[in-house]
Amino acid sequence: VVVRRLPIYARALEHLAAASERVISSGRLGALVGVSADQIRKDLSYFGEFGRKGAGYRVDALAATIRGILGLDQERRLAVVGLGRLGRALAAYPGFVDRGFRVVALFDRDPAVVGQEIASLRVLPMESLGEVLAREGVTVGIVAVPAEQAQAVTDLLVASGVRALLNYAPITVATPPSVRVGDVDPVVALQSLAYYLKAGEPSEQAS
Amino acid sequence: VVVRRLPIYARALEHLAAASERVISSGRLGALVGVSADQIRKDLSYFGEFGRKGAGYRVDALAATIRGILGLDQERRLAVVGLGRLGRALAAYPGFVDRGFRVVALFDRDPAVVGQEIASLRVLPMESLGEVLAREGVTVGIVAVPAEQAQAVTDLLVASGVRALLNYAPITVATPPSVRVGDVDPVVALQSLAYYLKAGEPSEQAS
Repeated sequence: VVVRRLPIYARALEHLAAASERVISSGRLGALVGVSADQIRKDLSYFGEFGRKGAGYRVDALAATIRGILGLDQERRLAVVGLGRLGRALAAYPGFVDRGFRVVALFDRDPAVVGQEIASLRVLPMESLGEVLAREGVTVGIVAVPAEQAQAVTDLLVASGVRALLNYAPITVATPPSVRVGDVDPVVALQSLAYYLKAGEPSEQAS
Repeated sequence: VVVRRLPIYARALEHLAAASERVISSGRLGALVGVSADQIRKDLSYFGEFGRKGAGYRVDALAATIRGILGLDQERRLAVVGLGRLGRALAAYPGFVDRGFRVVALFDRDPAVVGQEIASLRVLPMESLGEVLAREGVTVGIVAVPAEQAQAVTDLLVASGVRALLNYAPITVATPPSVRVGDVDPVVALQSLAYYLKAGEPSEQAS
């Protein structure tokens, strides 16, 4: 769970660095990311000692440390499978490179899509996936195919050396325990929020 | 945290229902969604009694109950702000309607984008946002604008009655406590995964 918050802290620290801020208190960092100062101190102390009591954190140093903890000091190479609307948007997303990821390969099973150029990359056929991933050193995959293809695509990515993947398909995919999956189905995210919407409404009985 | 897993259970139950399955054990449901049978039973018991010991859950009934818990028995109306690549993909995403959400309004601040038709909706100017959201009964927003515009867009959505939003912009937005935000920055999701990638690699010292 801490590992889910660290990228949020890193993102806030990068915005601060871009605004030429040099030092930040746990209270202010907490306010920026929506957690308490205590939580910030607790999360960071989990990985060692940072800053001095009362002196705040050095923005650059803390950002670098968090990037190190997350393994972002090394660029991760990424493949996108499925070049529908969402896959295209992700393939062309400008926010990856500055933050540790580079899209290096695109795959689709549709012959009409294979060969198209998206964000300076040519879409390749599924048959070449294993060979290209090995050659390009891809360790992270993005699955942006329909639900019924998601497991087969996941299996192929895992067999080709991918060890972490983001799954935008609306289905849970099974992987070996050594492979991490981030479930990023937008509807799942919305449905979790809907629960809280309901809590604020008059109940049907009462209305 | 349970509330984050319920949509995953609902999604799996819908796939089972589509495959004409009528009854499922907590063990098999757990295997489908990647959690233990105990966790399934514990999560569901939090909301009452379901199924009978040893008899499994009725797929349809459990799906309906979870939809009720999440407030999905009522369709939520959605606005997308920012019709860049990602916003367009979300505006046209076919997976919302069956699962409780309907995109009813699109907004962009770029005069060249306003007036375009995307997924049968015309993109509207930001100035009309308040009026349109009130008229259309929009309670959920998707923020798909660049980081530097995300807070202003969020403030406008909140002022116009939105009580839950998905934020795709790479920045934490501040909202009143009554408004829920899902942070769905793809890079944050990737960075959390990267931590686990690193754990499987030989350390620099050792290599």
